[in-house]
Amino acid sequence: MAVEWSGSTPEIMLQLDRGAKGTLGTQLQGALRTAIRSGRLRAGERLPSSRKLASDLGVSRGLVQGTYEQLAAEGYLTATGGGTTRVALAMRQPAIEQAADPAPVDVGVDFAPGRPDLNSFPMRDWLWACGEAARTASRMDIGYGEAAGSPRLREVLASYAQRVRAASVGARDVVVCSGFTQGVTLTLRVLRERGTGTVAVEDPGHREMAMHVRRAGLRPVPVPVDAHGVVVDGLRGTAATAVILTPAHQTPTGVVLAPGRRQELLRWADERDGVVIEDDYDSEFRYDRRPVGALQGLAPDRVVMIGSVSKSLGPTLRLGWILAPSHLAPAIAEEKHRSDRGSPGLDQLALTRLIESGRYDAHLRRMRRAYAAKRVALTEALRRHAPHLRLTGLDAGFHAVAALPDGMDEAAIVAAAARRSIHLHGMHRYRVHGGTGRPAIVFGFGDLNEHAIRSGIARIADLLLPGPTSDPA
Amino acid sequence: MAVEWSGSTPEIMLQLDRGAKGTLGTQLQGALRTAIRSGRLRAGERLPSSRKLASDLGVSRGLVQGTYEQLAAEGYLTATGGGTTRVALAMRQPAIEQAADPAPVDVGVDFAPGRPDLNSFPMRDWLWACGEAARTASRMDIGYGEAAGSPRLREVLASYAQRVRAASVGARDVVVCSGFTQGVTLTLRVLRERGTGTVAVEDPGHREMAMHVRRAGLRPVPVPVDAHGVVVDGLRGTAATAVILTPAHQTPTGVVLAPGRRQELLRWADERDGVVIEDDYDSEFRYDRRPVGALQGLAPDRVVMIGSVSKSLGPTLRLGWILAPSHLAPAIAEEKHRSDRGSPGLDQLALTRLIESGRYDAHLRRMRRAYAAKRVALTEALRRHAPHLRLTGLDAGFHAVAALPDGMDEAAIVAAAARRSIHLHGMHRYRVHGGTGRPAIVFGFGDLNEHAIRSGIARIADLLLPGPTSDPA
Repeated sequence: MAVEWSGSTPEIMLQLDRGAKGTLGTQLQGALRTAIRSGRLRAGERLPSSRKLASDLGVSRGLVQGTYEQLAAEGYLTATGGGTTRVALAMRQPAIEQAADPAPVDVGVDFAPGRPDLNSFPMRDWLWACGEAARTASRMDIGYGEAAGSPRLREVLASYAQRVRAASVGARDVVVCSGFTQGVTLTLRVLRERGTGTVAVEDPGHREMAMHVRRAGLRPVPVPVDAHGVVVDGLRGTAATAVILTPAHQTPTGVVLAPGRRQELLRWADERDGVVIEDDYDSEFRYDRRPVGALQGLAPDRVVMIGSVSKSLGPTLRLGWILAPSHLAPAIAEEKHRSDRGSPGLDQLALTRLIESGRYDAHLRRMRRAYAAKRVALTEALRRHAPHLRLTGLDAGFHAVAALPDGMDEAAIVAAAARRSIHLHGMHRYRVHGGTGRPAIVFGFGDLNEHAIRSGIARIADLLLPGPTSDPA
Repeated sequence: MAVEWSGSTPEIMLQLDRGAKGTLGTQLQGALRTAIRSGRLRAGERLPSSRKLASDLGVSRGLVQGTYEQLAAEGYLTATGGGTTRVALAMRQPAIEQAADPAPVDVGVDFAPGRPDLNSFPMRDWLWACGEAARTASRMDIGYGEAAGSPRLREVLASYAQRVRAASVGARDVVVCSGFTQGVTLTLRVLRERGTGTVAVEDPGHREMAMHVRRAGLRPVPVPVDAHGVVVDGLRGTAATAVILTPAHQTPTGVVLAPGRRQELLRWADERDGVVIEDDYDSEFRYDRRPVGALQGLAPDRVVMIGSVSKSLGPTLRLGWILAPSHLAPAIAEEKHRSDRGSPGLDQLALTRLIESGRYDAHLRRMRRAYAAKRVALTEALRRHAPHLRLTGLDAGFHAVAALPDGMDEAAIVAAAARRSIHLHGMHRYRVHGGTGRPAIVFGFGDLNEHAIRSGIARIADLLLPGPTSDPA
């Protein structure tokens, strides 16, 4: 893409050597020819005015005019209206290397879990909030602010977490980060410095968790998850002194960590002097009437809770938060400083205003209705086409798990569906050991509209029938 | 700060247990009292309408109305106009823990290097660019985009670096990051994976460099800098296979890496199969007529060049770029993915439009004039008050070095100036060994206006007089 210049001239890197052989005019001609041949100046690109270039290079304007005329005569440049000089469009130049093209548009249906509805990103609200941020930004918001985040945002986030998630935290123990990935990375590094060696991860669970643990120089160990959440007895059998959990809506099973297990887990943490990292990734979207409070509120000195706007607004914003015990928060903020010196100041201010104004809550309510409708579309489509499948994990978020009856082959169903451009995600992807638990399909529906959900299920209805999988397609 | 609610009701986390003792009304009253006493609901905060809360909790509206009336009678709540219920303003609640206050306003003058002019952040241009981003964003820009960065931005950055910095890079070898700190961190991690053990840093130089090296699990080793830049013979005497440099305008001495040294350095890199990390931090602002091309352009397979908009626009944006050799770029992008999954998508689009539209170049030209005027203010003030000081490193950027004549005591001058609220930065801060090189003061002037520069120098004029330092103040 050629750079366009609106009312201004481009900067060009040209060097003239007053000590070298050849006149300055010859040198300038040579430098411009090289810049054009090599593609540093692209076909069609506008050159600085002769006055401007002469001033930049410290030569006479006549010398530049002469050079432009010479190169125009040679076909490198074209004089266009209004005294503007451009690189000739006919110039043959090396192709600009293109960055990889975005993935081709998929005409199929991808039931990928973990994707929010990208079409519903509240662009108008966000732009309003950016304007508010611009209007109210202080010098500190524009410079290198505090690595832990804008004091105003941390206050608003602490208040929000208390009000909506029954968390218990003060603004000074909030660290703003870019999302779960960075939040868990910073936290694990601090835990390692403090002597942690082994970190438990849920099995089944996100395989990335073990990667995060290893990358921080720690050993991951899987712990089983059952219908009540993580099995604390399993945790006791490991050397772990920290565990990464998704208590509000387990990934991928969707179970909620049961009250008894919560107590048991916190007892384990006390016994081990351990830390629980709570991935609070989609708790905003609950469809029943019983919100599940954050584990963090029960034991603020044991739990590091990590949340973000990636699911509630959109991943593009790269804003999240870490609610940390007071004895860890300063070290986590220091890690943030060393990693990237802090998150963008104006974006932080914009999120502050979005929450303060009530627009954030209003968006969540709209989205809860939208996801609820998608959820109905999925359950009805499956009830109609595959009534024998038991669907669980639907109390919150935007994915559900369909356990497959005995004899059905998860991998064969996924493969057969893919041949019809319906992308399913088998439970085996989430088994940390790659093991052989009960076969199941994880249906994500956040970024699919209701029509796509219904038609996607209809197109693989035969594959979901009980009995050995065979693909008639 | 109380949360304000515009045309919407807040979300509240309340739990009712249908299996527990006590009526639902009693439970709801208790839950609200606790929320108010604990400060989870703040004084003055608006409660959901009775209809809304009843619907959320799955109870009758009358039950909620009765509860509100009871708590109003008890003084917890107040009914205000329009059927709105709020937490009573008189409620005594635990104080909200405040995040640390921003640093108190300094009435003195801080000649801190490395700070751009924050008052000149082009807020109007940036807001325009945000609007452009919103208008043109694709689904990919709103979701998890490529970790290496938006393809459009990478293309624009590659083109810009070729045009202005004489770099030689294709878009596929550009990785968008949050600035130098993240850029060097990602690069060093990849180098470590590839077998690098020791990394040289400039001495004098930014002490943070050695910290970055150590944090990546590598050994830093200092290499001296003289009037021609880094001493390559010194580099040969170390075990380093990588070096972090500021070739265009050395931090802090301000010297430019001389042409002969550039060649010598690249020969060293070839011999060692080594890597040069080029911190291109303020090359946008040159005041003479001879731009200094990036080292990267001379050896794109040996040099990782890191730049950002922190000095050119403002640190708040947290956007930078890594131009990497093709054999390193994919691994650096993967490190970016693992660290934070990529930089904010809309911000990347906004920067793309800012550069494409020519507004970025126009801002740089404005700022070059602004910094040139500050530079004149500094040189004239020092010429007037301390004509014996030799000022160097002023060809670019917004700091200069004043070497102190023999017998003057750097630390004593800094301390005496601080007592007058004039903050000076001594050269010892930049000596990696904390060693005893020639005493000097590094004067940063980017974020000071001309009046502050002049009055700051005038207020310490006597301290800068030759001879043993004594503070008459």
